[in-house]
Amino acid sequence: MLPAVENLLLEPRGDTLVIWFNRPETRNALSGAMADELAAVLEALPSAPYRFVVLRGKGGAFCSGGDLKMFRNVFQAGMPRDEIVAFNADFGRMMVAIRQLPQLFIVAIEGAAMAGGLGIACLADVVVTTADAKFALTEVTLGIPPAQITPVVIARIGASQARRLLLTAQRFDGVEAHRLGFAHFVEPDLEALESRLQSVLSDAHRGAPGAIALTKQIISATEELEGSELVQFAAERFADAMLGDEAREGMQAFGEKRKASWVSATGSGPRDNRGSGS
Amino acid sequence: MLPAVENLLLEPRGDTLVIWFNRPETRNALSGAMADELAAVLEALPSAPYRFVVLRGKGGAFCSGGDLKMFRNVFQAGMPRDEIVAFNADFGRMMVAIRQLPQLFIVAIEGAAMAGGLGIACLADVVVTTADAKFALTEVTLGIPPAQITPVVIARIGASQARRLLLTAQRFDGVEAHRLGFAHFVEPDLEALESRLQSVLSDAHRGAPGAIALTKQIISATEELEGSELVQFAAERFADAMLGDEAREGMQAFGEKRKASWVSATGSGPRDNRGSGS
Amino acid sequence: MLPAVENLLLEPRGDTLVIWFNRPETRNALSGAMADELAAVLEALPSAPYRFVVLRGKGGAFCSGGDLKMFRNVFQAGMPRDEIVAFNADFGRMMVAIRQLPQLFIVAIEGAAMAGGLGIACLADVVVTTADAKFALTEVTLGIPPAQITPVVIARIGASQARRLLLTAQRFDGVEAHRLGFAHFVEPDLEALESRLQSVLSDAHRGAPGAIALTKQIISATEELEGSELVQFAAERFADAMLGDEAREGMQAFGEKRKASWVSATGSGPRDNRGSGS
Repeated sequence: MLPAVENLLLEPRGDTLVIWFNRPETRNALSGAMADELAAVLEALPSAPYRFVVLRGKGGAFCSGGDLKMFRNVFQAGMPRDEIVAFNADFGRMMVAIRQLPQLFIVAIEGAAMAGGLGIACLADVVVTTADAKFALTEVTLGIPPAQITPVVIARIGASQARRLLLTAQRFDGVEAHRLGFAHFVEPDLEALESRLQSVLSDAHRGAPGAIALTKQIISATEELEGSELVQFAAERFADAMLGDEAREGMQAFGEKRKASWVSATGSGPRDNRGSGS
Repeated sequence: MLPAVENLLLEPRGDTLVIWFNRPETRNALSGAMADELAAVLEALPSAPYRFVVLRGKGGAFCSGGDLKMFRNVFQAGMPRDEIVAFNADFGRMMVAIRQLPQLFIVAIEGAAMAGGLGIACLADVVVTTADAKFALTEVTLGIPPAQITPVVIARIGASQARRLLLTAQRFDGVEAHRLGFAHFVEPDLEALESRLQSVLSDAHRGAPGAIALTKQIISATEELEGSELVQFAAERFADAMLGDEAREGMQAFGEKRKASWVSATGSGPRDNRGSGS
Repeated sequence: MLPAVENLLLEPRGDTLVIWFNRPETRNALSGAMADELAAVLEALPSAPYRFVVLRGKGGAFCSGGDLKMFRNVFQAGMPRDEIVAFNADFGRMMVAIRQLPQLFIVAIEGAAMAGGLGIACLADVVVTTADAKFALTEVTLGIPPAQITPVVIARIGASQARRLLLTAQRFDGVEAHRLGFAHFVEPDLEALESRLQSVLSDAHRGAPGAIALTKQIISATEELEGSELVQFAAERFADAMLGDEAREGMQAFGEKRKASWVSATGSGPRDNRGSGS
């Protein structure tokens, strides 16, 4: 069961859950309440019956970043320092939790993706954006560092571009986001964005859900293990999968030139047409 | 002495050893036997009289990935789990061994470079490809994770593109492989590929063999050491080289505006023409 | 107080210090004396009254790399091995020190940026270059490894391109340096380079100096801390900033749609025009 939410909108579409930021009057600024709801949904998702999770924003913006009203009216109005530290660390832990989702996690961006909003987008497995979306890490212009966002931006686009963008707050659009590797697909308008999102989801049905979850575990392990420990961890996951139902079905289907059982009717057509380039 | 092989073809060309995957009837699928032979060749190479190693595939494909017949007929037909783990971990250790080759290691790709084949290409010092080559990390479509391949793909092209490609199995061609940083040179056809390979090898003769081997040690050390230990390790290698014969010859040749002794007749012409861009 | 220098030229321009390599007769080769002076300036900079530091080269070249005369006449003329190790390790420590500058650090390149010169450029927060600048990691052609430079090049452009360039010494120009992520801005000629440098500096005035220094601390911490330690470190810096004068001023200015106090008259115009793309 997913938790009740007020600042998000949860839209199930078959095997896909679309999570909408739903504070359009603030261009989906990340209030404490909205972040808490997102964390609660993330906690429930591993046992929820969805293969895919999409995150996007209502009202023409993805997410404009931290909630400056909260920063001024709460943080700067006498909140004890250790509570501010705890709030920010909670945000950092939520970002770690996103990476541990077993489902394929897709972010679709139109309009502003600023500061913390851009940080969350850095955690997606696939990012699609419109060409005219607006990206910036604006924190230093407000007198604060992009604290929990710094490591994820570096991990996403490398230290060279990350230093520039974190330290100068230069704006960029969806075309540049694609060139920099923030986004995987850039589309000319909203209609093309919707169409690309459907095509990414359709293609993604070719992947076995259990194999995707194991792969995400191995991706996380590359940040924590090294050398022979990482080799062993990956080999154990390989054997787990090889002896499981998905691998039997997958290899049998491949041999019989038919679709595997997990490729739904919304899949991408004949097997020899799999993959879409970028 | 190089070991006898059946699934590979070893073609010495002067100071270069060309290793061919030679199972064209399977598009060079990585059978256990072929992987064992490659590991044995790699083990012998550090003491073999070659400055350059090229890896490519016979029959119009580089390597189509793991051998699905073996997966079905051996792994899924009752092999004990711990033997499957050991097999996969062996593959992981072979990939580590490739990185420790003292020679410059070049991969030339035409046709399919899939799954484990793409993983091996990620370990090359230089990759050249035809524009119409076909790349994909297809594992999740078969119900298994790209186990030992995950870390090398992340190290090769960064976490952003790696997550997408590992988790969605999207196909891409040589042009996209160049854009993503998998490949360093992309050529329109096989003739241009051969020509580029020759030109890369010719240019590479300007590098002193011992200095290249030391540089590869330092590259490996960046994955294992940090901070002052890494500074010290690199400084020791610098002093080793500076007091050696290559550095004396290299600096003297530079001062005399002549080629150093290791730049063979197949080198790239006059010294002020060194380097080729990309 | 900045130290007296002979091999550098220090040019204060308001809140910016321009450091010039000033050995044009050697295309600014990195002699021991010049490296020592640069290290001394770096040591003094944290307490010097500058918000921005620019490094460039006199005489039409940025820096041609190590001083081969010194290599031949000192290192290879009987200097004890441990003194060579110490010299090279000093260079490695200077590169670490550059990363710890609290100021925004910009490198502007025209002409040659070779070997150690290219290594120093890899440490900049922003790099601007002319299209016809000449880049190469030439060490292996001289019989030595690019020792302290190897880790910074890998960190800057990723292992794939770094292996190729470190091991083959292939040359590239400013356009390719931009494509590879070495440089953030590439300009057709020197006039355009000066103009871009002014525009980067002008834009950068929007960032609060203290917030920039804290962000650089967090960037450095991502190389040293992991997991919950890194989350905590970033959260502490966030709280430090949030309760400080800059954040109060920054958020108040944002609410009042005026420039913050640290945005000087040379800033980039109206707030809704911030950022410049690339």
